[in-house]
Amino acid sequence: MAIKSILSMNAFDQANFDSLPEDVKPETKRRLDVFGSASVLFFQEPIEVVKGEGCYLIDAKGTKYLDCYNNVACIGHGHPRVAEYVGKQLAIVNTHTRYLNKVVDDYAEKLLATFPKPLDKIAMTCTGSESNDLALRSAFYYTGGKGVIVTSGAYHGNSYLTTFVSPSSTNGKITCDFVKTVPAPDTYRIPKDQLADKFASDVEKAIEDLEASGIKFAALLIDDIFSSDGVFSDPEGFIKKAVDVVHKHGGVYIADEVQPGFGRTGKMWGFQRHGVIPDIVTMGKPMGNGYPMSAMVTRNEIIDALKQTGYFNTFGGTPGACAAGTAVLEVLKEDNLIENAKEVGDYLRDGLRALKKDHPCIGDVRGTGLFTGLELVKDPETKEIDPKGATLLINRLRYNNVLIGAAGPYGNILKIRPPLRFYKKDADFFIEAIKKSLTEIHL
Amino acid sequence: MAIKSILSMNAFDQANFDSLPEDVKPETKRRLDVFGSASVLFFQEPIEVVKGEGCYLIDAKGTKYLDCYNNVACIGHGHPRVAEYVGKQLAIVNTHTRYLNKVVDDYAEKLLATFPKPLDKIAMTCTGSESNDLALRSAFYYTGGKGVIVTSGAYHGNSYLTTFVSPSSTNGKITCDFVKTVPAPDTYRIPKDQLADKFASDVEKAIEDLEASGIKFAALLIDDIFSSDGVFSDPEGFIKKAVDVVHKHGGVYIADEVQPGFGRTGKMWGFQRHGVIPDIVTMGKPMGNGYPMSAMVTRNEIIDALKQTGYFNTFGGTPGACAAGTAVLEVLKEDNLIENAKEVGDYLRDGLRALKKDHPCIGDVRGTGLFTGLELVKDPETKEIDPKGATLLINRLRYNNVLIGAAGPYGNILKIRPPLRFYKKDADFFIEAIKKSLTEIHL
Repeated sequence: MAIKSILSMNAFDQANFDSLPEDVKPETKRRLDVFGSASVLFFQEPIEVVKGEGCYLIDAKGTKYLDCYNNVACIGHGHPRVAEYVGKQLAIVNTHTRYLNKVVDDYAEKLLATFPKPLDKIAMTCTGSESNDLALRSAFYYTGGKGVIVTSGAYHGNSYLTTFVSPSSTNGKITCDFVKTVPAPDTYRIPKDQLADKFASDVEKAIEDLEASGIKFAALLIDDIFSSDGVFSDPEGFIKKAVDVVHKHGGVYIADEVQPGFGRTGKMWGFQRHGVIPDIVTMGKPMGNGYPMSAMVTRNEIIDALKQTGYFNTFGGTPGACAAGTAVLEVLKEDNLIENAKEVGDYLRDGLRALKKDHPCIGDVRGTGLFTGLELVKDPETKEIDPKGATLLINRLRYNNVLIGAAGPYGNILKIRPPLRFYKKDADFFIEAIKKSLTEIHL
Repeated sequence: MAIKSILSMNAFDQANFDSLPEDVKPETKRRLDVFGSASVLFFQEPIEVVKGEGCYLIDAKGTKYLDCYNNVACIGHGHPRVAEYVGKQLAIVNTHTRYLNKVVDDYAEKLLATFPKPLDKIAMTCTGSESNDLALRSAFYYTGGKGVIVTSGAYHGNSYLTTFVSPSSTNGKITCDFVKTVPAPDTYRIPKDQLADKFASDVEKAIEDLEASGIKFAALLIDDIFSSDGVFSDPEGFIKKAVDVVHKHGGVYIADEVQPGFGRTGKMWGFQRHGVIPDIVTMGKPMGNGYPMSAMVTRNEIIDALKQTGYFNTFGGTPGACAAGTAVLEVLKEDNLIENAKEVGDYLRDGLRALKKDHPCIGDVRGTGLFTGLELVKDPETKEIDPKGATLLINRLRYNNVLIGAAGPYGNILKIRPPLRFYKKDADFFIEAIKKSLTEIHL
């Protein structure tokens, strides 16, 4: 396929159906017929995924792709431990948490043991959106306020409430009065020694703006790897001053660990890199390796504040979910996947940085553990962004057997976020694919 | 255990921990330690469920309970088909719907085939709350309005938005300006020939109230079995006039099929009994027999309205979920569980009505398929409700090996809603248990 036909976006455009290869049309048509325009399929030419193994996905033609996109299958696609534990548990019983069940309590205790005090209470949900929705409600009840601060490119979920705090879903627009945004701490453009102070003062200004318009401040909600803002990780600790500001103003700090959690950053939780203890932690995606499960962890007095409506989730924290979650915690530990994330992540970034010399379009390579951002620019001096280059690269990588997506408000940053079962040989494969693709698209 | 110690509520009261039997304390304490005050455990003495089979649950002591509460495990607890399909699929691949996958499209087509035209588009979610949250957002976008009408004892979910439309979660209070309630069509107290007209005129008045306060009407959201309002099912068709009123005023009718859907009422969908075609249908609980999955089904133009934010759900409609959903659709059909619901439901209600003579506290037995409401009254003439009697009965039934819960704003209605794998022998067991329990508590 010629480069020129690659779309200007990283998704299939339904208007281009007729130009699809004939063998891709039937399955694509079936999908459009049932999902309609709400369907988003990746790539100009959608992929029919039939199998997964480790950090690889295989399509209907038998083509194997290195998966650098999917953080959900953190211990590896199709992992036998998850399949076994879930299959066994579903054959035993999979009912809700209004009964006692040891599988549930064993898991909850094991998970809570990974948190610092006073974070010792859990509410089990099914999706990251549900966790963030519940966390915001908890913050509203607990603080008596409603003002929320998020970063300007944030994504925190797809529910009614969490869409308000996800400017990345609304083209950056804020569509309600109780949400204010602050710029994400852009580690590529803001000098290191100013980063923490700038972020803290931006947060303080947003709190003052909220209160000036009569809205009591409730929460700062951030993803501490700033995933959809463009991946900002270092220096460790740069969010601490902002968290202090939040507490000074009577608000709570909600750490959205849906992206950084469960070892991706080289630590179990992303906030641990910043030397802070959140008031509320939310988690989701990798928690059950694909089995729908998520949670909110907090301290007792915040759980108590939820009493005014109560909270119960029919599918949340059932024995089936906890069986999946148990498999994930076991394999993370047995296979040293957190240490692996740290080691292979550093190795990958070193390899990518070495490409800068021949490919000045690579403006920045950053990240921690197995969460890496590769920022494409038109000029490394001016740092002018290159979203079109990123789109070309992403769609080219698909034909060089690598699945990947973009981050950042303008989509010019490659978000490299594979399953944690990603080793040096996979990093080498990725680096070669990037080199080849950049050359093919003349970048 | 003496009757007098039974609590006035159908849930464990944490303040009574010390009076629990010694052998129940350790597991109960573990649960309270991790879940805190957000934990709701059923019954004054919580049950540790270790296994499920068909319509029975088994506790840690080996006691077998007839489960008349859990509609989620619709094809039976621990069903081997679900365990097998899910276990196999998780070992193959379980990634999201931004790729094509035949398991997903096969399931979506099969499910959509159960709906009348023009309901031919699906959005896959993970919980009923997510489906209702999305349905409301879709209605807002599509109509340009925001006013929502629900019944006064409704429950539609646990998200921020769906809590606003769930007066049963807020002691009947409405805590926002865009929601109005109407009384549920109480088939026990309103004469049959007035029911449809009254419900329609209540809805029309609520629409007028909304618009008088400057809020454009968007949607009537109802559960067509009126589950948490107290179970109102007949005569068939009584909601049709209200739906016509909704359309006359430019709103949409959202059928919340989380409770009545998937055959429970003796038809695949509850709305089919009323001769209406909803604009949006939401579903959840029994859809995956416990695997977290749910959906919104609607017509193309309403899906199109969602474009302004898009909708994607990481865990929604993955191959794992669709494997579970496929097992449910297959077994519902192979085992004739929908016909069974109709037949055994009628048999059960006949048997319960026969108890009225000796137990005048049974004011009304109503319902359809395997969704039955049994209303306890102090006097069958005045129909004065008896919530305390219902609580006594529910906690007594637990010791006579039946698990059950209450419905209605005052909790005086037994909600009899077992897995659909519930046969005449199980109905007989239930009727005997009711007789025995009523006698024991002197009702």
